[in-house]
Amino acid sequence: MTKSRILVQLDSDAQPSVFDAVVAVDSGVDHLLQHGSVTLDQVQGLVHGAMFTRAPSDLHNTAVFIGGSDVVVGESLLKATTDSFFGPIRVSVLMDASGANTTSAAAVVAAGRHLDLAKTDALVLAATGPVGQRVVRLLGAAGANVKAASRSGQRAQHLVDRVTSGMANLKIAAVETSNDDQLRKAIKGVQLVIAAGAAGVELLPVELRTCNSSLRVAIDLNAVPPVGIGNVDAMNKATELDGVVTYGAIGVGGTKMKIHKAALTRIFESNDVVLDIDEIYKLGLELEA
Amino acid sequence: MTKSRILVQLDSDAQPSVFDAVVAVDSGVDHLLQHGSVTLDQVQGLVHGAMFTRAPSDLHNTAVFIGGSDVVVGESLLKATTDSFFGPIRVSVLMDASGANTTSAAAVVAAGRHLDLAKTDALVLAATGPVGQRVVRLLGAAGANVKAASRSGQRAQHLVDRVTSGMANLKIAAVETSNDDQLRKAIKGVQLVIAAGAAGVELLPVELRTCNSSLRVAIDLNAVPPVGIGNVDAMNKATELDGVVTYGAIGVGGTKMKIHKAALTRIFESNDVVLDIDEIYKLGLELEA
Amino acid sequence: MTKSRILVQLDSDAQPSVFDAVVAVDSGVDHLLQHGSVTLDQVQGLVHGAMFTRAPSDLHNTAVFIGGSDVVVGESLLKATTDSFFGPIRVSVLMDASGANTTSAAAVVAAGRHLDLAKTDALVLAATGPVGQRVVRLLGAAGANVKAASRSGQRAQHLVDRVTSGMANLKIAAVETSNDDQLRKAIKGVQLVIAAGAAGVELLPVELRTCNSSLRVAIDLNAVPPVGIGNVDAMNKATELDGVVTYGAIGVGGTKMKIHKAALTRIFESNDVVLDIDEIYKLGLELEA
Repeated sequence: MTKSRILVQLDSDAQPSVFDAVVAVDSGVDHLLQHGSVTLDQVQGLVHGAMFTRAPSDLHNTAVFIGGSDVVVGESLLKATTDSFFGPIRVSVLMDASGANTTSAAAVVAAGRHLDLAKTDALVLAATGPVGQRVVRLLGAAGANVKAASRSGQRAQHLVDRVTSGMANLKIAAVETSNDDQLRKAIKGVQLVIAAGAAGVELLPVELRTCNSSLRVAIDLNAVPPVGIGNVDAMNKATELDGVVTYGAIGVGGTKMKIHKAALTRIFESNDVVLDIDEIYKLGLELEA
Repeated sequence: MTKSRILVQLDSDAQPSVFDAVVAVDSGVDHLLQHGSVTLDQVQGLVHGAMFTRAPSDLHNTAVFIGGSDVVVGESLLKATTDSFFGPIRVSVLMDASGANTTSAAAVVAAGRHLDLAKTDALVLAATGPVGQRVVRLLGAAGANVKAASRSGQRAQHLVDRVTSGMANLKIAAVETSNDDQLRKAIKGVQLVIAAGAAGVELLPVELRTCNSSLRVAIDLNAVPPVGIGNVDAMNKATELDGVVTYGAIGVGGTKMKIHKAALTRIFESNDVVLDIDEIYKLGLELEA
Repeated sequence: MTKSRILVQLDSDAQPSVFDAVVAVDSGVDHLLQHGSVTLDQVQGLVHGAMFTRAPSDLHNTAVFIGGSDVVVGESLLKATTDSFFGPIRVSVLMDASGANTTSAAAVVAAGRHLDLAKTDALVLAATGPVGQRVVRLLGAAGANVKAASRSGQRAQHLVDRVTSGMANLKIAAVETSNDDQLRKAIKGVQLVIAAGAAGVELLPVELRTCNSSLRVAIDLNAVPPVGIGNVDAMNKATELDGVVTYGAIGVGGTKMKIHKAALTRIFESNDVVLDIDEIYKLGLELEA
């Protein structure tokens, strides 16, 4: 008899995410075990319960999803999960706290539809947030020349140091964008800008967006008005605006959802995958092919 | 592919109700997402998770149930839920905290089997509780002449003011029933009495029940002995007693359960219904037809 | 229509056990209602929700599982559950907090494959723990001559007093094993030793295990190295070692899992069974037949 698909949802928030739960159900999960307020010390017991209940040949039908609004906590829950494995006795795991992995992967996938990323000069606004730092990492790994921008030059530099640690070939530079002059200078000559800021914060006003004639693609990941890039509506999806291809948060959302579901499907195909940002982006590229 | 039915159970109690969960499963819910200790500030995130995961044409397969033993909190959770909707992007919702809506609807439906409510003089005992106030509202809206009784005349008056606010045509009066004389006077001439008191409190002793020759129907909603209306057994279901048709809490329970299940079915037929007391009573009437 | 199988999982831990949940799903449970941090005062409401939602003829499709790492709390949750029943209006319940019931039953079942328990002299190490005391009880009830050993003679005596209370025919004696001399004396002449100690504590070193030529079967229930009985690997399953049949924790685990699943099947066959240690051991024996 085929075992039913069981997903263990580990969420650091008090209420486990309904969003993640519905997507799991729609991806074919039969039984969802929802756990909220999950702390590091609880992970091993929960993951061992997933590992030690089914025969090794059935373990691909049990998997772990790590969510919650705090991405840093999510990363530590992921580590605690993989630290609980015993060699081949393990289950697959998908990490998408705050949707940061699927969102950043979708944004870079969208950019790649219109640009050869390896030859692109890119500016990432609000680069130090959970989505921004993943976008920087993915663009850098794709060979782009990346400016990682933050209102704090120091925070931007810390991020760049972290992302490029042990990967000297990445072309990533920190830039401070605490005023319009710095912003105007930062955007000069780039073909791609991705804004990964908090809800309701305008990062790039219209006049600065349109002052750069080399700009080809602008992607804004903030769905709550005011949008992060002036006049880029949340619904925009490869929408031309002043000669620039633009995407809004909802326009990227369809790709994000496809990647999320493909990742949920993937973790039930074998018991040995760990889907974090790089693997999720790779899945996103495969969906485009 | 038809989407499976997902119900988001928002319960203000620490442990989400097993009662509500079993009824949901028996009404065809495929996946139940149970949330306990739900607070007002958590509602929007949970409801948005229900709204933003499926295509608009599939949204009728996701719904919200609001439960918990505290009816006032349940009302505020309902408001927070509907406040989270964005125009047509919404899901249907059923509010039945403490079973107050289905219980009061079932009681009035039962009364309507034997009386023309528009021509009925009714007495509601313990009218200020969550079930009592809904019974008063439904009887009043059906055109009955209602005495809303409480041991505190002031609380009774507050209730009447609230229920009749903006509905001047309702015939509802407050009565104080803090002693037997007041009670004897209150029951005089009524054809219907409904007792909606707390478990184990006798609201109407036998001698007062039988002193009114005009009484036709007596309904007691307290299942825990001593019953709320003298000698009206909890199992009574249209049972004649001293020339009066009587219902006990369990006797009304079958109708309550049918209404509860019909309401759960209804919220999966479209994504735009909000089932609160008036809509639930209307459903109950349709089941009688 | 056949009702789906609903299992109410009452767990005293903050996170309800994933282990118990997966086994429940694999035993045919359709809907699992998981409750963590369950306290005594919450049990009645939860159990009444299971009792009062389906017709009596359907009640066998709803059942309660009691888990959690604290076996003493589990016992009190079991009592609160059965105290909530009203005569024939009840549901079946399985108690296996910390896996203590299925583990001890599996150990004694394994021993019974190789020995006539009624004619066996047995030594139980760490007898005062939740698994140990159940092993003592089962061996005693099977007619064995049991030495219940603890590093504290007083605690061992308290256990024996409790187990033999009202059952004067049981042959159970307390022994203190706080040093090697006491241990050597305790093991002398026994055919069976079962070690039920905490993870990572060696209760019986190799030299003491091999000093008793009458020993036939040695069972160790600790899976975390160092094992509880010297050189008895956790994977051992009727493995001969120095002329003794040995079982390790994982070797017993297969039988434990079969018993666990059979118990979960059993509680959905009728609505009137309470599966605690004695009933679970009986089920284990039936599986051997």
